[in-house]
Amino acid sequence: MITKASCEAFDRADPLAHFRSRFLLPEGVVYLDGNSLGALPRATPARMRKIVDQEWGEGLIRSWTANGWIDAQSRVGDKIGRLIGARPGETLVADSTSINLFKMLATALRLRPGRHKIVSEATNFPTDLYIAEGLIDLLGRGHVLAALQTEAVEQAIDADTAVVMLTHVNYRTGRLWDMRRLTQIAQENGALMLWDLAHSAGAVPLDLAAQNVDFAVGCGYKYLNGGPGAPAFLYMAERLQDASRPPISGWFGHAAPFAFEPNFRPAQGIARAAVGTPPMLSLAALEVGVDLMLEASMREVRQKSVALTNLFIRLIEQEAEKFGFALVSPREDARRGSQVCLRHDSAWPIMQALIDSGIIGDFRAPNILRFGFTPLYVGYADLWEAVAGLRQIMETASWQKQKYQVPASVT
Amino acid sequence: MITKASCEAFDRADPLAHFRSRFLLPEGVVYLDGNSLGALPRATPARMRKIVDQEWGEGLIRSWTANGWIDAQSRVGDKIGRLIGARPGETLVADSTSINLFKMLATALRLRPGRHKIVSEATNFPTDLYIAEGLIDLLGRGHVLAALQTEAVEQAIDADTAVVMLTHVNYRTGRLWDMRRLTQIAQENGALMLWDLAHSAGAVPLDLAAQNVDFAVGCGYKYLNGGPGAPAFLYMAERLQDASRPPISGWFGHAAPFAFEPNFRPAQGIARAAVGTPPMLSLAALEVGVDLMLEASMREVRQKSVALTNLFIRLIEQEAEKFGFALVSPREDARRGSQVCLRHDSAWPIMQALIDSGIIGDFRAPNILRFGFTPLYVGYADLWEAVAGLRQIMETASWQKQKYQVPASVT
Repeated sequence: MITKASCEAFDRADPLAHFRSRFLLPEGVVYLDGNSLGALPRATPARMRKIVDQEWGEGLIRSWTANGWIDAQSRVGDKIGRLIGARPGETLVADSTSINLFKMLATALRLRPGRHKIVSEATNFPTDLYIAEGLIDLLGRGHVLAALQTEAVEQAIDADTAVVMLTHVNYRTGRLWDMRRLTQIAQENGALMLWDLAHSAGAVPLDLAAQNVDFAVGCGYKYLNGGPGAPAFLYMAERLQDASRPPISGWFGHAAPFAFEPNFRPAQGIARAAVGTPPMLSLAALEVGVDLMLEASMREVRQKSVALTNLFIRLIEQEAEKFGFALVSPREDARRGSQVCLRHDSAWPIMQALIDSGIIGDFRAPNILRFGFTPLYVGYADLWEAVAGLRQIMETASWQKQKYQVPASVT
Repeated sequence: MITKASCEAFDRADPLAHFRSRFLLPEGVVYLDGNSLGALPRATPARMRKIVDQEWGEGLIRSWTANGWIDAQSRVGDKIGRLIGARPGETLVADSTSINLFKMLATALRLRPGRHKIVSEATNFPTDLYIAEGLIDLLGRGHVLAALQTEAVEQAIDADTAVVMLTHVNYRTGRLWDMRRLTQIAQENGALMLWDLAHSAGAVPLDLAAQNVDFAVGCGYKYLNGGPGAPAFLYMAERLQDASRPPISGWFGHAAPFAFEPNFRPAQGIARAAVGTPPMLSLAALEVGVDLMLEASMREVRQKSVALTNLFIRLIEQEAEKFGFALVSPREDARRGSQVCLRHDSAWPIMQALIDSGIIGDFRAPNILRFGFTPLYVGYADLWEAVAGLRQIMETASWQKQKYQVPASVT
């Protein structure tokens, strides 16, 4: 029997507990949606004032060099690289996750001419599938997207597979792919491996270089706490960089952007994957989030993440079993990312009632309540509070109120 | 003979003079580089504090709906649309100018199957040419980029031309294309017209709808004062939207992004050109700049812009003729954007010495001194000061100092 007191005891023993004060979280909120938008680091407002008032306002154009803006994509990229086990020079901050996926997927397809298949998962995050679909249509060369049921992915990888594109942690279930295994299977079949790390970077220890990953993309606004719509990142293994031709070849990826040469000549290394001028205000906020993340041990982050998700599952079973929630996420700790998803026919109104009560998770169509656990600012007692709140909503049936009726746009 | 007093008199008569106090400009600086990075609007720091502290920090994920983030790309797009003469629903804020160019160019090529030529200008901003080059290479369908001398562009537009891609105001000369004429010639030949408005939006009155323009892209961080690397915009004529298939089809361009459907289904209208999650902090700063711009009359902005560039040319002739500066920009007011470019063999060290003295313009390889004039915050007496400063640098030969030696990276 888990009690509120035992949760509080977990908090007292938590080696990461001190990170919570490094974030500005609103009073009266239990925030279990850091996998949609990470919380605001305490250091970010001051950094934003400096880049706006001093660097932009006073420094003006001079800040591109004087304040290191021009190197920011590589600098912050390399910092993220340390979080994902990349070598220096393999990670770049750029564009959005979707745009980066397009760039890396197009690059991969060109490295495997004559192969036609992109293997992915039917339950992959839709934008990944949309991007692949759009690229195939644009190229018009008979590529096909094989978006398969999870169990069928491995055996679909064959000699006609150009690239295997998977999201490491599934957005709707929290299921974790075995990165080493899949990468190996892809490469044994002569294919390239492209991982989407949107729900992994900053939450799960990653070792891209050691696992010989070819390409990856990821998100700055979830566990990296980079702010709404923070610039994304991309990773390209060093061994592939020289041979890769950027499909979107913009001046920031040129060997000499300010020489204004008439023809494109790719920059050395990962910099060739840059395209246009990066949104510096958003990029500055991202750097604060990444710097904060780098202070934590990823091993401790993962330990706490597992403990939090495990505790949450047990609390749901203990306190809310009779209300008909079905666990969607894997029960086995090693196969679960930093989130827990529950299925319920009334997921939408229940989540709205929860949010109204200050317990913020999110709804994923058609019937999923999704809870994300960011080890740097979520504590064990928060989970007690969240589950107690859920139980109360179910017991009082407050989610059945008129105002929580499912709008047409959701159904 | 122009005197300092006559410049001051122009300032007193300037109907836009009051806008200068709406910007935070550093003391002791004459800023003639708003066409590289616009100055900081006075209202921006407070807006940034609000979006960081309240909307992100307190509102967290709820702000996507509660604070209108989800509609920001269309909302700010339509505001920019008013500045460029677009109809509502034809302009969207998204990505970078280079990425948008890729998207619009790919869209245009698909609307003209069987045609092979992209007609452009050899002296176009290089990223435009690089993007076209990269897209052609990616598609591998025998398209060619005809990047011609300015005088040869018109006659190169023919029945094999899919799209004419030009930058309205040339980045290095300030020369202004006749938008109506070129658009008409393109369309008479059955081609589509794509304008890059990087140096036009917010500086030159534009009337895209009336001139029947097909596609356009533009920049948020120059005359729109949106901040370093501000998100860019794109324009697609309403009549083309339904038939256009987004080449980069991401979830933000989906008809129902949060329904998480397995297949891409484009949103109605211009929204289909969105791709990933937009960088909201940078986008919020852009909106402040655009709102400020909307308070001004574009007719008055153009009148002052012409008066400033004309005065600057005359001052250079009067005060600095003997130092060997050659005017690169058109002398005829109607053919010049909001900038004046001078050629000089020692352009690089002279510009460095100028910047050191607080007169900020920029250098464009190989030998151009470029001065941009933003009518909202540049005054006539500023130009007197700038030219007097230039004269002093030339008379004292201070640009020949060791510290202004041209670094290898520039030559």
